[in-house]
Amino acid sequence: MNANSPTPAPVTVLGLGAMGRALAAAFVAGGHPTTVWNRTPGRADDLVASGAVEAPELSAAIEASPLVVVCLFDKDSVREALAPAVSSLAGRTVAMLTTFTPTDAREISTWLAEHDADYLGGAIMAVPTMIGKPESQLFYSGPQHLFDTHRATLERLGTSKHVGPDVGTSALYETALLSGMYAMFAGYYHGAALIGTGGVSAKEFAAYFVPFVQAMATAADGAAEFIDKGDYTAELQSLEFNRSALHHIVHVSEDQGISPEVPALLRELMDRQIRAGHGADSATRMYESIARPQG
Amino acid sequence: MNANSPTPAPVTVLGLGAMGRALAAAFVAGGHPTTVWNRTPGRADDLVASGAVEAPELSAAIEASPLVVVCLFDKDSVREALAPAVSSLAGRTVAMLTTFTPTDAREISTWLAEHDADYLGGAIMAVPTMIGKPESQLFYSGPQHLFDTHRATLERLGTSKHVGPDVGTSALYETALLSGMYAMFAGYYHGAALIGTGGVSAKEFAAYFVPFVQAMATAADGAAEFIDKGDYTAELQSLEFNRSALHHIVHVSEDQGISPEVPALLRELMDRQIRAGHGADSATRMYESIARPQG
Repeated sequence: MNANSPTPAPVTVLGLGAMGRALAAAFVAGGHPTTVWNRTPGRADDLVASGAVEAPELSAAIEASPLVVVCLFDKDSVREALAPAVSSLAGRTVAMLTTFTPTDAREISTWLAEHDADYLGGAIMAVPTMIGKPESQLFYSGPQHLFDTHRATLERLGTSKHVGPDVGTSALYETALLSGMYAMFAGYYHGAALIGTGGVSAKEFAAYFVPFVQAMATAADGAAEFIDKGDYTAELQSLEFNRSALHHIVHVSEDQGISPEVPALLRELMDRQIRAGHGADSATRMYESIARPQG
Repeated sequence: MNANSPTPAPVTVLGLGAMGRALAAAFVAGGHPTTVWNRTPGRADDLVASGAVEAPELSAAIEASPLVVVCLFDKDSVREALAPAVSSLAGRTVAMLTTFTPTDAREISTWLAEHDADYLGGAIMAVPTMIGKPESQLFYSGPQHLFDTHRATLERLGTSKHVGPDVGTSALYETALLSGMYAMFAGYYHGAALIGTGGVSAKEFAAYFVPFVQAMATAADGAAEFIDKGDYTAELQSLEFNRSALHHIVHVSEDQGISPEVPALLRELMDRQIRAGHGADSATRMYESIARPQG
């Protein structure tokens, strides 16, 4: 089977939590012979009704397909679940759609390699209801040929991208993007809390916040050039200037009786660079406080 | 003069730092008779060359126009600069485009009212090079009729919006939006630092981060409904679920040798709500840790 195959390739999904069920449903909808398995049975009824096969045994589930998608809770649950049938994986490809650290990915791929199984690291940037739609973004990393071989199947799950040969890279992409998302939301919550003290609703604030942060986000590309060069000497607004803006935000937050913790941490990340003598550099140097905590 | 006046109204700008000079230049470009003043002279040469009048004395500067735009460093510099000529402000409108807290705005507006001057609070969401362009956003607050009277002049500076009758509200808008912006950038820096440990450049990461955070930002509108109702019971992804995602980000950050401080703070803001018994509520409840630090 390869990406140009006109016949949907068989695929197995191990783990039928909310995400695993969504993955299996997308394969079934795409016409793939889909075998599913879950440690505790009874999670597959809807899938079986729509055409999936529930394997009674893990080894039978694995043997049904050249591609085995694993969607479990974490590394320990993967080890525990696969151990009894790991030899069945020989000659097959495991696409790991379980939340892993890069270190987890390397550990499990090494273990599977000892049993002659191929490993493709994966990460899902979507909630279960998005699976199968183009707005569902998935990252894969590991040997390019494995991605190419199974691409047509994997693309049933959403927009799929191979991001590098290291099995851990897909996990880094996921974690890096989620970091940005959570921090952005913390900024929204902080802003909404602040403006709420003036009787403005979070809804009214969102109408300003969304386009503003969308416009400002585009500056990340310019900031990247300083970061990639490691050179922050610039005529842009300095660390000193931005530090005083953050100090103002902390002060207003305290004045209005809300928690100043979010802006106070950002001020501290700037202060570390200023204390190291870089106050005249561009504010992007704050990146260094995160990337090189030991200085 | 009013908003429908066909003849550009006279305007005075006090304070000729980089921002004050940009404001005055936009008024000159719009054909307004523009008078400028700075405590230390010699900052107005370019402006005078393009048609502005530099007033030798503060009182002469104020008396030249019905609208006086003040762009100084902070509240103390405003008090100090205006005190010698505050009586000249009687019958005029001060548009305060100095970075103020809401408390500063109320204090200075009260002081000016004692001298029969009207006060319009203002905030600039732009860097000097953006002034005069539509992407420059300015917020004003205070009496609606003052904004209406001077609207045609103020709109020379960018997209101008009156956000409420309280003179402090414009400062809250500015501070709230900047909070969100800084937190979003901290998230980008964290993500770039993480993904940099895998040899991916900040530039490559920006290509994923920008559209992702732009798409995710739109969820602020949905989160606002929970916040405004104060009701976080929901079938959405719970605090517990998101807390485990943040815990994973902290763990990967430590594993990769970068500072975990940004996600660790966000995890802590979630943990406070979980400790208070709200783990099954939607993750938006994290807002409460910021808005009500005393619980």
